[in-house]
Amino acid sequence: MSLFVPGLIRRKRDGGRFEEAEIRELIRAYTDGDVPDYQVSALLMAIVFKGLDADELAAWTDAMMRSGTVLDHSAVPGRKVDKHSTGGVGDKISLCLAPAVAALGVPVPMVSGRGLGHTGGTLDKLESIPGFSVDLPVERSSQLLADLGIFLVGQTEDLVPADRKLYALRDVTGTVESIPLIASSIMSKKLAEGIDGLVLDVKVGAGAFMRDLDQARSLASTMIGIGRAAGVDVRALLTDMNAPIGRAVGNALEVREAIEVMRGEGPADTTELTVELGAEMLVLGGACASLDDGREQTTDALADGRALALFARLVEAQGGDPRACDDPSLLPAAAESTTIEAQAAGAVTRIRPRKVALAALELGAGRKVKEDEIDPATGVELAVDVGDRVNPGDPLMTVHHNGSSLGAARALIDEAIEIGPAADATGSLIIDRM
Amino acid sequence: MSLFVPGLIRRKRDGGRFEEAEIRELIRAYTDGDVPDYQVSALLMAIVFKGLDADELAAWTDAMMRSGTVLDHSAVPGRKVDKHSTGGVGDKISLCLAPAVAALGVPVPMVSGRGLGHTGGTLDKLESIPGFSVDLPVERSSQLLADLGIFLVGQTEDLVPADRKLYALRDVTGTVESIPLIASSIMSKKLAEGIDGLVLDVKVGAGAFMRDLDQARSLASTMIGIGRAAGVDVRALLTDMNAPIGRAVGNALEVREAIEVMRGEGPADTTELTVELGAEMLVLGGACASLDDGREQTTDALADGRALALFARLVEAQGGDPRACDDPSLLPAAAESTTIEAQAAGAVTRIRPRKVALAALELGAGRKVKEDEIDPATGVELAVDVGDRVNPGDPLMTVHHNGSSLGAARALIDEAIEIGPAADATGSLIIDRM
Repeated sequence: MSLFVPGLIRRKRDGGRFEEAEIRELIRAYTDGDVPDYQVSALLMAIVFKGLDADELAAWTDAMMRSGTVLDHSAVPGRKVDKHSTGGVGDKISLCLAPAVAALGVPVPMVSGRGLGHTGGTLDKLESIPGFSVDLPVERSSQLLADLGIFLVGQTEDLVPADRKLYALRDVTGTVESIPLIASSIMSKKLAEGIDGLVLDVKVGAGAFMRDLDQARSLASTMIGIGRAAGVDVRALLTDMNAPIGRAVGNALEVREAIEVMRGEGPADTTELTVELGAEMLVLGGACASLDDGREQTTDALADGRALALFARLVEAQGGDPRACDDPSLLPAAAESTTIEAQAAGAVTRIRPRKVALAALELGAGRKVKEDEIDPATGVELAVDVGDRVNPGDPLMTVHHNGSSLGAARALIDEAIEIGPAADATGSLIIDRM
Repeated sequence: MSLFVPGLIRRKRDGGRFEEAEIRELIRAYTDGDVPDYQVSALLMAIVFKGLDADELAAWTDAMMRSGTVLDHSAVPGRKVDKHSTGGVGDKISLCLAPAVAALGVPVPMVSGRGLGHTGGTLDKLESIPGFSVDLPVERSSQLLADLGIFLVGQTEDLVPADRKLYALRDVTGTVESIPLIASSIMSKKLAEGIDGLVLDVKVGAGAFMRDLDQARSLASTMIGIGRAAGVDVRALLTDMNAPIGRAVGNALEVREAIEVMRGEGPADTTELTVELGAEMLVLGGACASLDDGREQTTDALADGRALALFARLVEAQGGDPRACDDPSLLPAAAESTTIEAQAAGAVTRIRPRKVALAALELGAGRKVKEDEIDPATGVELAVDVGDRVNPGDPLMTVHHNGSSLGAARALIDEAIEIGPAADATGSLIIDRM
């Protein structure tokens, strides 16, 4: 069909809707370079204001998914299940969750992303393991799924090229903040993984992209709707992102903490999130009949070493040094560390996730521009949780840095932890399930 | 200053406003090619939804105006005054109005446009006069203004290049329909003419871009505000555009009708509009103390041949054949003409301006794409006005065409005139003054 794109733009601008065939042709034409960026950016801005309805969104996501290779794991028995987090600070859950679930018999074909904005990325964390490669040919990933029930890789060039192009355009045209566009971007990539089930960790709060619970709920229900239209079971947890997850923020530091979780020795919040998401995945994968059963099995697989053993096998299979799983001193370490101490007595009322994340980014743990190289060793290790009482001189955190000073991270670090007269400890991170 | 364009786009999207310096730098950078089309189109769409306030709009228009040459007619004595119409069907008013006003001592430096959409353009009409050139070097235009008190030319390459670029982008990105963008586009070009006063003919109705009176009023008041900020007196007439103006639609046909007006023999509506706009221009130009005085003087200049004499001198000065002003048979004429007759008895209840305009366009009087060549001879001559009684066989219109059949124009012509049991004649075209 031949599209008249200015007409489509005007229609959406005026609150109209698109036919499925129009959406398919638009996405195809844009991916192939037959529609210019300047028309698509105007259309995206019209969508920011006017949205896409459920039918449009299902067609849009499906067209994006089919713009490239769609993985087919039907040769691997069992229901394949993945997890996606909308992005947080200190979110190393994938590293311990995927091996735990796979160790319990549910195949996890996990295609992850890099750090985005202030948030870290699973791929960057994995690459802090010496030798670990996230760039595997599709055949090799499929082999790993068949052999180990798991792979942890990055997006290949031919997976959802429409999203790659659209995302790059949205990033520079003020059109990122749109629930249908966010939802279709996430879901097109996840659906292209060839999964049967998906658990979403939709983060809400100061350290998340969604600071507002209603918005997060709307994003979750939009993604659930897209999954339903595609015949994939989607469950969503809305989880609190008002303090960093766990105590480590920074790539190798987070791998180390994930290994602690897989030894049954991780921080309570990180372990809770792993167990809750694991239970959902096990139920979706058909390995457990109830969430309680799933919680118990996930807890066991972490505590008895099955998750860690599988993770070590996966690290080796993806070219990394598996000894790092037993001896985290083999992970990269920064040349310098600086301990930040409490100046006054009181209780930790707040640990600001964005301040911590941006401090880590300044130290090299993240990218300011796409071309930046990551320093895997740098980051922040918190010594306290919200609710802890401290006295002057007590350590609040250790900052790991290469280079003699904290530089631009200093001011962020000083503002990261708030001490007040009193504070309650944080409870469960799980706000709601959908 | 260095601009972060994605930040500007997000700010406007979220309802924020721009500083004057940001607008100046944005328009400069876009004109110079330092900001890509795909960012500007997204920003324009955000402006479609969120608008520009009066201060932003003044800065935006001024920056556009200053993107190229700003004409300076200060060497020519007197207050220079121009007229702009937002575009109608059969609108040949500029052709008779400008000479009448200039003949009465108010200099008229008129830079006009080509046909746009279904509407005709003054330049296309002028070019139907054999030899007439609308492309004059700036020095030649200035000389004509000094010698004759008038020029009728097209936009030179270096007049408001920002608008040329923005308009081309808006045309293909669904961002034409925005009052601040329409107003700044028009006003930047008019202000760059170096005028002291401007009369706007803001058309409302079925044949206009604005079909709604409130919208037209809002456009008029927005342009008046821009003029005020720039120190230029602007008056606006809101005029009815529910039937073609006069009886001719098509380039040479309209020149012929304009000549009739300048002989004091034009149709009542066309003459009324010329006189009303002329009166406003004469008051703005300081040549008349009151509108009534202006009306009287304009009527006289049309009736006694002063307007036509000046028009003939101008035609000659711009390379055209001035004999056409006395002998319109020297204008191009179509090879064929077809008379359309009434099928039933009744009264003319409606003459649909868009049907007439699109029929003329199909016959070659306008362009479907930018590259189309205009056929100056083709068009429609109405034989009736709204309110006239007709009997079967009475002529409704004569269609002038080159080529043996009416082709795609036929269906449009058949739907153009509505006959009903009874209808009142149309009254004054002037709806309101601002």
